[in-house]
Amino acid sequence: MVRHNLEYPKDIHNTVNRYKHQAVYSLTTIHTIINTTPVLHVSFTPSPESPFPVILPMIGQMGSFSHPSRDLGDPLDCYLHGYVSSRIMNLSRQEGGKGLPVCIAASKVDGLVLTLTPNSHNYNYRSSVLFGYAQLVSDPEEKIWAMELITNSVLPNRWSNTRLPPNAAEMSSTQILRVSIHSGSAKVREGVPNDEKADIENEELLNEVWTGVIPVYENFGKPVPGPYNRVSVPEHVRVREEWNERNERYAREAAGKDAPVAGKKKEAEGDD
Amino acid sequence: MVRHNLEYPKDIHNTVNRYKHQAVYSLTTIHTIINTTPVLHVSFTPSPESPFPVILPMIGQMGSFSHPSRDLGDPLDCYLHGYVSSRIMNLSRQEGGKGLPVCIAASKVDGLVLTLTPNSHNYNYRSSVLFGYAQLVSDPEEKIWAMELITNSVLPNRWSNTRLPPNAAEMSSTQILRVSIHSGSAKVREGVPNDEKADIENEELLNEVWTGVIPVYENFGKPVPGPYNRVSVPEHVRVREEWNERNERYAREAAGKDAPVAGKKKEAEGDD
Repeated sequence: MVRHNLEYPKDIHNTVNRYKHQAVYSLTTIHTIINTTPVLHVSFTPSPESPFPVILPMIGQMGSFSHPSRDLGDPLDCYLHGYVSSRIMNLSRQEGGKGLPVCIAASKVDGLVLTLTPNSHNYNYRSSVLFGYAQLVSDPEEKIWAMELITNSVLPNRWSNTRLPPNAAEMSSTQILRVSIHSGSAKVREGVPNDEKADIENEELLNEVWTGVIPVYENFGKPVPGPYNRVSVPEHVRVREEWNERNERYAREAAGKDAPVAGKKKEAEGDD
Repeated sequence: MVRHNLEYPKDIHNTVNRYKHQAVYSLTTIHTIINTTPVLHVSFTPSPESPFPVILPMIGQMGSFSHPSRDLGDPLDCYLHGYVSSRIMNLSRQEGGKGLPVCIAASKVDGLVLTLTPNSHNYNYRSSVLFGYAQLVSDPEEKIWAMELITNSVLPNRWSNTRLPPNAAEMSSTQILRVSIHSGSAKVREGVPNDEKADIENEELLNEVWTGVIPVYENFGKPVPGPYNRVSVPEHVRVREEWNERNERYAREAAGKDAPVAGKKKEAEGDD
């Protein structure tokens, strides 16, 4: 079967209006950024009277309980778990029908892009947002499936290497939100510095200012055994070298790529 | 003069209701987390008709233009800059009086805390939220001061090592938001794994499951010169070793500390 590269349709919520050339609507790209970001930021409106939206840091993962064989390029739900105030949980319980409207954001910095002028400075980065409706998961089977999904997103195979199954108290104290996705988008910037034409032709400036990229990536240190640990570091905990290499490679390769629209910065900025 | 350790007063917006023992209201702690996080997540309500709040990733920094000698323990504004849709800029221009209500969040993961049961798993982390009112900075002097503040937050001393001053086109295309802070809070988790008493007394479990912390920290790679770079790496760009050591040390030390409420997990959870 031919695979389609699905995209979220553009609407008033997800359409990127500035630096459009960096916008991505591909489900694969958006879902991959969400799934590889250790902390998601989830925003909701706590009450019609409150002037402020609230942001909670939560752990989350894309998945489909009803269609578990779907991959990252398919329509998926976002499952959320976090040590959070119960406000969001109560609100999503009260909201009848669709659920509580939320915005979910995931952002990674891949490099500091240092240019000739302060204004052209940038990050290499990957950033996703999703808009959707959150509902509490009440089916115990779906809940335990999501708990396993989220635990294994922090460290692959961790779930089956712990005490299972969760007991009744653990099941009732754990709350999982399933967010049905309405739309989403991503922005990705990779590549070398990209200055304005007039600055690149300024010989004096070129002889004075260092331009380039400092790669940035998440690094995992040597595992530190806890006070009641008795066993040696098992295979599934020995992931750091592989992860560190992967992360460093991405940031380094992003730093050396051609800039997305070399020499076209001015035009792109006019998108707004 | 005696320095006071100022705190944001608790109100309906910033009070932490879950895991209260990890809550911090100290201005120094909250502002430090904001200032050392490379991407802030800023949420606002785009219009009364829209069901979804919006989150934008932005670069920001705490500071006081009117009282530049204030330090991180003092009341400060949050200055924001980002390659963003102009929606937030337009909204903050339209909102008369106080400005556009926003929530600003900054989160860092410092370690994966691996425990005996999935439910006790955690991150070591530092997380701040601020609530406030955003207004566009119109005074050119304040704007250029904030541009310097934000540029140097990405890389110390970068501002004075680039082509200055910004020209008229750069000044008009750059928009800076000043967020007047209403309240804020932080949550900090550091320390060793912390399981339930019954699990820690389970001999079979202790002989099977590895428990401990995998430290996580942001790492900076070797600077990659851009295609039109002509100069050797200057002193102010050679920061990675110092930063990497500092970041690694924090994550490693956090991994080895006593858990915040060892043996009291159950009680703390009851805070909700």
